[in-house]
Amino acid sequence: MAGSQSSGQPLVPARGSALLLLSLLLLLSQLLPGCSAQTKRYEPTWDSLDARELPAWFDEAKFGIFIHWGVFSVPGFGSEWFWWYWREQKIPAFVDFMKANYPPDFKYEDFALEFKGTFFKAYQWADIFQASGAKYIVLTTKHHEGFNLWKSNNSWNWNSVDRGPRRDIVKEIEVAIRSKTDLHFGLYYSLFEWFNPLFLLDKANKFKSKRYPVAKSLPDLYDLVNTYKPEILWADGDGDAPDTYWNSTDFLAWLYNESPVRDTVVTNDRWGLDNICRHGGYYTCSDRYNPGHLLPHKWENCMTIDKESWSYRRNAPLSDYLTIEEIVSQLVETVSCGGNFLMNIGPNKDGVISPIYEERLRQTGAWMKVNGEAIYETKPWRAQNDTLTPRVWYTSKPKENLVYAIFLQWPSSRMLVLGEPKATSGATTVKLLGYQDPLKWITVPNRGIIVELPELTLDALPCKWGWSLELRNVQ
Amino acid sequence: MAGSQSSGQPLVPARGSALLLLSLLLLLSQLLPGCSAQTKRYEPTWDSLDARELPAWFDEAKFGIFIHWGVFSVPGFGSEWFWWYWREQKIPAFVDFMKANYPPDFKYEDFALEFKGTFFKAYQWADIFQASGAKYIVLTTKHHEGFNLWKSNNSWNWNSVDRGPRRDIVKEIEVAIRSKTDLHFGLYYSLFEWFNPLFLLDKANKFKSKRYPVAKSLPDLYDLVNTYKPEILWADGDGDAPDTYWNSTDFLAWLYNESPVRDTVVTNDRWGLDNICRHGGYYTCSDRYNPGHLLPHKWENCMTIDKESWSYRRNAPLSDYLTIEEIVSQLVETVSCGGNFLMNIGPNKDGVISPIYEERLRQTGAWMKVNGEAIYETKPWRAQNDTLTPRVWYTSKPKENLVYAIFLQWPSSRMLVLGEPKATSGATTVKLLGYQDPLKWITVPNRGIIVELPELTLDALPCKWGWSLELRNVQ
Amino acid sequence: MAGSQSSGQPLVPARGSALLLLSLLLLLSQLLPGCSAQTKRYEPTWDSLDARELPAWFDEAKFGIFIHWGVFSVPGFGSEWFWWYWREQKIPAFVDFMKANYPPDFKYEDFALEFKGTFFKAYQWADIFQASGAKYIVLTTKHHEGFNLWKSNNSWNWNSVDRGPRRDIVKEIEVAIRSKTDLHFGLYYSLFEWFNPLFLLDKANKFKSKRYPVAKSLPDLYDLVNTYKPEILWADGDGDAPDTYWNSTDFLAWLYNESPVRDTVVTNDRWGLDNICRHGGYYTCSDRYNPGHLLPHKWENCMTIDKESWSYRRNAPLSDYLTIEEIVSQLVETVSCGGNFLMNIGPNKDGVISPIYEERLRQTGAWMKVNGEAIYETKPWRAQNDTLTPRVWYTSKPKENLVYAIFLQWPSSRMLVLGEPKATSGATTVKLLGYQDPLKWITVPNRGIIVELPELTLDALPCKWGWSLELRNVQ
Amino acid sequence: MAGSQSSGQPLVPARGSALLLLSLLLLLSQLLPGCSAQTKRYEPTWDSLDARELPAWFDEAKFGIFIHWGVFSVPGFGSEWFWWYWREQKIPAFVDFMKANYPPDFKYEDFALEFKGTFFKAYQWADIFQASGAKYIVLTTKHHEGFNLWKSNNSWNWNSVDRGPRRDIVKEIEVAIRSKTDLHFGLYYSLFEWFNPLFLLDKANKFKSKRYPVAKSLPDLYDLVNTYKPEILWADGDGDAPDTYWNSTDFLAWLYNESPVRDTVVTNDRWGLDNICRHGGYYTCSDRYNPGHLLPHKWENCMTIDKESWSYRRNAPLSDYLTIEEIVSQLVETVSCGGNFLMNIGPNKDGVISPIYEERLRQTGAWMKVNGEAIYETKPWRAQNDTLTPRVWYTSKPKENLVYAIFLQWPSSRMLVLGEPKATSGATTVKLLGYQDPLKWITVPNRGIIVELPELTLDALPCKWGWSLELRNVQ
Repeated sequence: MAGSQSSGQPLVPARGSALLLLSLLLLLSQLLPGCSAQTKRYEPTWDSLDARELPAWFDEAKFGIFIHWGVFSVPGFGSEWFWWYWREQKIPAFVDFMKANYPPDFKYEDFALEFKGTFFKAYQWADIFQASGAKYIVLTTKHHEGFNLWKSNNSWNWNSVDRGPRRDIVKEIEVAIRSKTDLHFGLYYSLFEWFNPLFLLDKANKFKSKRYPVAKSLPDLYDLVNTYKPEILWADGDGDAPDTYWNSTDFLAWLYNESPVRDTVVTNDRWGLDNICRHGGYYTCSDRYNPGHLLPHKWENCMTIDKESWSYRRNAPLSDYLTIEEIVSQLVETVSCGGNFLMNIGPNKDGVISPIYEERLRQTGAWMKVNGEAIYETKPWRAQNDTLTPRVWYTSKPKENLVYAIFLQWPSSRMLVLGEPKATSGATTVKLLGYQDPLKWITVPNRGIIVELPELTLDALPCKWGWSLELRNVQ
Repeated sequence: MAGSQSSGQPLVPARGSALLLLSLLLLLSQLLPGCSAQTKRYEPTWDSLDARELPAWFDEAKFGIFIHWGVFSVPGFGSEWFWWYWREQKIPAFVDFMKANYPPDFKYEDFALEFKGTFFKAYQWADIFQASGAKYIVLTTKHHEGFNLWKSNNSWNWNSVDRGPRRDIVKEIEVAIRSKTDLHFGLYYSLFEWFNPLFLLDKANKFKSKRYPVAKSLPDLYDLVNTYKPEILWADGDGDAPDTYWNSTDFLAWLYNESPVRDTVVTNDRWGLDNICRHGGYYTCSDRYNPGHLLPHKWENCMTIDKESWSYRRNAPLSDYLTIEEIVSQLVETVSCGGNFLMNIGPNKDGVISPIYEERLRQTGAWMKVNGEAIYETKPWRAQNDTLTPRVWYTSKPKENLVYAIFLQWPSSRMLVLGEPKATSGATTVKLLGYQDPLKWITVPNRGIIVELPELTLDALPCKWGWSLELRNVQ
Repeated sequence: MAGSQSSGQPLVPARGSALLLLSLLLLLSQLLPGCSAQTKRYEPTWDSLDARELPAWFDEAKFGIFIHWGVFSVPGFGSEWFWWYWREQKIPAFVDFMKANYPPDFKYEDFALEFKGTFFKAYQWADIFQASGAKYIVLTTKHHEGFNLWKSNNSWNWNSVDRGPRRDIVKEIEVAIRSKTDLHFGLYYSLFEWFNPLFLLDKANKFKSKRYPVAKSLPDLYDLVNTYKPEILWADGDGDAPDTYWNSTDFLAWLYNESPVRDTVVTNDRWGLDNICRHGGYYTCSDRYNPGHLLPHKWENCMTIDKESWSYRRNAPLSDYLTIEEIVSQLVETVSCGGNFLMNIGPNKDGVISPIYEERLRQTGAWMKVNGEAIYETKPWRAQNDTLTPRVWYTSKPKENLVYAIFLQWPSSRMLVLGEPKATSGATTVKLLGYQDPLKWITVPNRGIIVELPELTLDALPCKWGWSLELRNVQ
Repeated sequence: MAGSQSSGQPLVPARGSALLLLSLLLLLSQLLPGCSAQTKRYEPTWDSLDARELPAWFDEAKFGIFIHWGVFSVPGFGSEWFWWYWREQKIPAFVDFMKANYPPDFKYEDFALEFKGTFFKAYQWADIFQASGAKYIVLTTKHHEGFNLWKSNNSWNWNSVDRGPRRDIVKEIEVAIRSKTDLHFGLYYSLFEWFNPLFLLDKANKFKSKRYPVAKSLPDLYDLVNTYKPEILWADGDGDAPDTYWNSTDFLAWLYNESPVRDTVVTNDRWGLDNICRHGGYYTCSDRYNPGHLLPHKWENCMTIDKESWSYRRNAPLSDYLTIEEIVSQLVETVSCGGNFLMNIGPNKDGVISPIYEERLRQTGAWMKVNGEAIYETKPWRAQNDTLTPRVWYTSKPKENLVYAIFLQWPSSRMLVLGEPKATSGATTVKLLGYQDPLKWITVPNRGIIVELPELTLDALPCKWGWSLELRNVQ
């Protein structure tokens, strides 16, 4: 058993049943000669785990794509919480939708028959993601509905290989991302499942029994990590159970000490009741978290293009989708304040990223192609936004003595007033990303600088939804 | 934990993981004051378990109805082994059937959508069973396909409450049987499941891991017994795994010592590889087992009206169904040789017992109404069949000094020659069941007796497919 | 156009639109040299048509099988009137059935998707029909639902070739019947259709417009006759419209004068409002017509084995099916009174004749094999049933001086008293069909004869549900 | 009959069967006192019909929305010719698509079950159409598949009220358009149907029989006009049959003389083989017709946003949709050359206009809001495009002495050179639509004028995809 542990996933029943035995095994495994050159080891405590440094790639990446795809994409109505709203909360809009369109004995599970991914091609997705300028993706491998997008042995008959597409979705996307793009590959996993009977049983026992994590969530998590080697593990859905129920610190200690991705993996803060914004890797705090100011801990703003839903909605009108101007604005604000920007799309049941999503992604990519210098691998500057001109946000590259001022509105006077940067005569230069010549500027005493923007016709503008000034040698 | 054990189902993970702990617990539970008046306790060894006497009701009952109902009833083609034949063995008839009638991505699991039991009424079934003369039923609560006919927490999304009928079939039938009939209530349970990924994983490990029994079969078995209190537990499908893998002796010890049905429950001999016909309760040996001679151990002939299948077949022609003459013949032969007769029907996906099955059951019942005296509560006689006249079978009631000669052909001479019974002048009487007057008979020295049957027109015959002579005081 | 008429089906629009033109054409066609040797021509008037003699084969055949198969076989609930009861009459049982089992927007037409005839094999049907002893069949080529079981050009998208089975059912059955049996091939056709919009339009016009017969029923009828050459054309469903609306007399004149089956075809009496039991070929009067006495006009008792429905019912219990004793009784009574016996079955949506139907048909066949002499090619006798012994019915073969007394109960005394036949000493003989030796009988002055039946054990009885005495030379 | 004709739709059978009678009736109806004040009457000849003046509203409207919606929207694959490509041409992509995704016996007709229009709201469509700047719509009431989007009595069971949505789509859209917008309401109708058996029968007869037009297309056309009073009747699909087969000249004479829309209705040129671009109302010539120069006859460019299909395609990537720049370009070119611009969208099976279509329509509307003055109610100018500067197109309003120069590229120099207009010193003024102040310009001798465009930042530009100069008093 020690052997099996050092080579991969520990046998779950042991782990689930006898904490005594487990401790013994862990003790043993620590006495054995270490199988990696890693010097630092993490204890299964938050103190130890929280002390781990986030692998650098994540902060440098800045921008990722979140993908919500599952059986909920079949009704494509309301949101990915369809099942819960319909069956548990009995919200009239959902109850009426089912009554009007399905036979009385229709079950949510029956939607799986239609979850075919008829036109799903992972390479097409990868191509769009690459074009969007994102540096990582996070895929819902299993949402609260419990349907695994890979062949989980722990979810027979309720996963994408046994039913619906009959394909290992996680694998296909992994291969496409890793072979065709330079994006990092991240996976979302919901710990709890609304209607899993073992979870409900444990819940009725006030989480004193652990039949569900032993039978489902822990084996799944080990399997995901060992099989797909994700660089992000994005936990969600504690189901009001404490991390001790989920065995989270044990699992994370394994993830950081032993797993094949122990050196590169990044995780988040949703590993148990009241952990969010307090423990784990980077903080997500709440959905669409965007504090508007700098935070001491690395964080991520996960938000979605469809303002109403993370999953595809068949009846979403154009007005429910963010415009490209809104997207660029949120992206810039998030990065200025030290966050990563995780922008969500919901493919439809056919496995198609609908053209409106594709357009927003490609527009974002067009903007990033010009302005990526001001985003990727930057650090927050001492000021986040400008004090004189609204809608101007700063980023910086301290080592190169660069500050970026990203302005979301082109002043009609062509004179951009920046209240924060202090220029150094002779040393300071100003450049518009995507434009050849250096710009003229003047100092305003105690008030920063005024930059004269060039006169550019529509076609000559480097982009249309926000522009970046590279300020060299400013304070 | 000891407490929970004595009150019902032990916590499974403990049981599944640490045999050491388990032994400890069992030890403990034996030291605790016994909670039943039962004196005899069974050890989890075959020696101990095999020594248990079969509760008397079973041998007296003689005749039961076996019911195969499940998702396999939806294709209704070939047999209940449809899934295996199609997916695993790829038998052309099955592969072609699917190609011709379903989309290429159709899964066996998708049949569950159509398994509705639209017209299923347990009370109608109970009425038919009662009319058939059977004294017990055995219902397939889960066949090798793994689909539970009750709300098993261990089979989310693959049971009759979550999918298909959305009803607790086992409960409905239990209630109908127990409230409307005097039949005993028995349950069939397949240990293994063809395609359960945990079983396949254990199998790949040569049954050294036990993920499947811990997660599925053992919790199910405890749940079945505690919830439905069956008087027969009809195990099947060892999947080539030994009883140690299935934890069978532990389970049976619990069943006999602790379970709510410990005093009345009967079980069979299919609890692990090579156990069949050797260990457990009564012997079933093989499907349609009918040795034709007396056996030292109680046995059961489970057979089926449709000669080709245990489950409903949509395209079975009349010629595939046994005639009532054939049924009576097999029943009589089985009982004569000490067996019980478990006659199978396959309701269709609508939950209807088709009229041809209903007819056979009611015909059997009509026959039993007259001849039941020669069947129920009888013992095999010293001879099973007659040595002179073919198609004559014997049963007996030793305490009442009765021997029954059941003859399947009415001699055209009306003179029935019985080579076995030795009559005692003055004491011996002969009666035809269903006919008022005693019959005349004469002794044939060293050759038994000759009975003169009455001249009866069709309407006056007590039945049409076999008749019983009650011989009082013969040797 | 005259040419096309003489060779087959006249162009319908001409017929439908301009009676003037039509008369002209008919006139012309009568002036042209006749293309058959037929001497007698029929006018399109009831006087002329009713005077036609029924082709002899029909009265000789006595026994036919009626087959109701169509989209109504898919719900298999209530009866073939399902659509009407549900949609038009809104009978609660039907409305509730749909609500409980189908989505709210489900249409009757959608049942066609499931009308696949998965196991339909015309040769199997033919084999069963042949075995039943029937001498003809009548197949519903289109019931009131309007769904044609052949590729009607006049019912695009609502026929068995365009939808459902995608097979020409009429053709397959025709080929099987004609190549594998000696049965006559008859076709049923419903004139009206409940929901055909053209019919509804004509109805709203009080049948002054004729859009429906011009577009649908007349082209269909010509097509049926020309393509499949039926020997019975069994019209039904006048929809409360007079025969003038249906153009029935014109059509029948064509059928009798010109059609390829003009010499052999038989038709019935359902060709327009108030025609039933008054005009046409043989009389059917009402469903399950069985007057119990002799009629002056040839008639047919169309009845059905399932007492509740002409079409298959998925939930029909055994008790809804006639027993073989009841069938033989009705058959015998019908033939005695000069009727033909048209016994209906309803195959299920799979195209399977369910085993209970098959059993009844084969049982009937077994009876007919012995007693057919007393049925086929017989004439009613001067008495229909016996005046002294109940359940005795007579038939006769005048040319051969034979009278048949069919008795449905075997007298327990073995003495059968027949009050009607007057024996002639020396000339009269009595025989039991299926039994070798002549029977003994005695005359009862003015009271007929008493026949002594042989003593026969069950196996030796020629059949079990009715027996026939052949009386030679009685008055 | 004359009476019924003058009040609406003539009885079809008469029309279809006896041209003689018809002529008589037409003669009669012309002798009767006219029931309208209309002085001019059209003969059923092309000479007479072609001489009719197009109602003025059509040329003034310039821009319409074409809507392709039908059962073909359900597979949503390839194009609206799906059925033909799959069943008739057996194009591998279509055959393979069906094999991969549907059971072998699946029929195109079965798609109708899924054609539900679950989210179809005509008012939402009307809102989008109004916002697009279009002045009329044309809806496919029936495409070559033959499925009517209204309750046609002539297409039982193959129309949107009997199957699929179970709604009168044409009526719902009519009501929304007429009550909520100022758009004109136009209807498309395909004369032939690929697989209508009556059409195929006529075709096999080389169109000498007319069963199909009598039974289907003519009754439908009269019904459409009388019921929905369309202002455009957009015929299509002659099926290689001459207009005499279709009775087109008769129908059009009725449409122009008698129909309720005789004064306002506009029609096109697809009324029979070889009529296209030669006879009828305005010319459409070919799909996506865009000659690039002025035509003597009013014409329409019907084109589609999805470059590959008129109907919705589930798998169309963003690159298959025209950009707004491309749309504006085609619109401007078409109007300059005297054409109307009929831009097509394909709603999906849910009845949703997908967001990418909605975006294109609203973008077009935003452009039209500024530039509509240069489009609506204009006439072609003497020059269509500029001879010096590419991508400049002209329109004019002669009465007001206005010429519009629409330029699709903003010159980086801000100096727009127009070679065609000859200015008149003192009289000529130049204005940019959407911009307050008059622009400066100078004359270039013999070479037109040069206009100085204002310096405008992105936000201040009146629009982004093309701009219009209003030139007053130029030659």
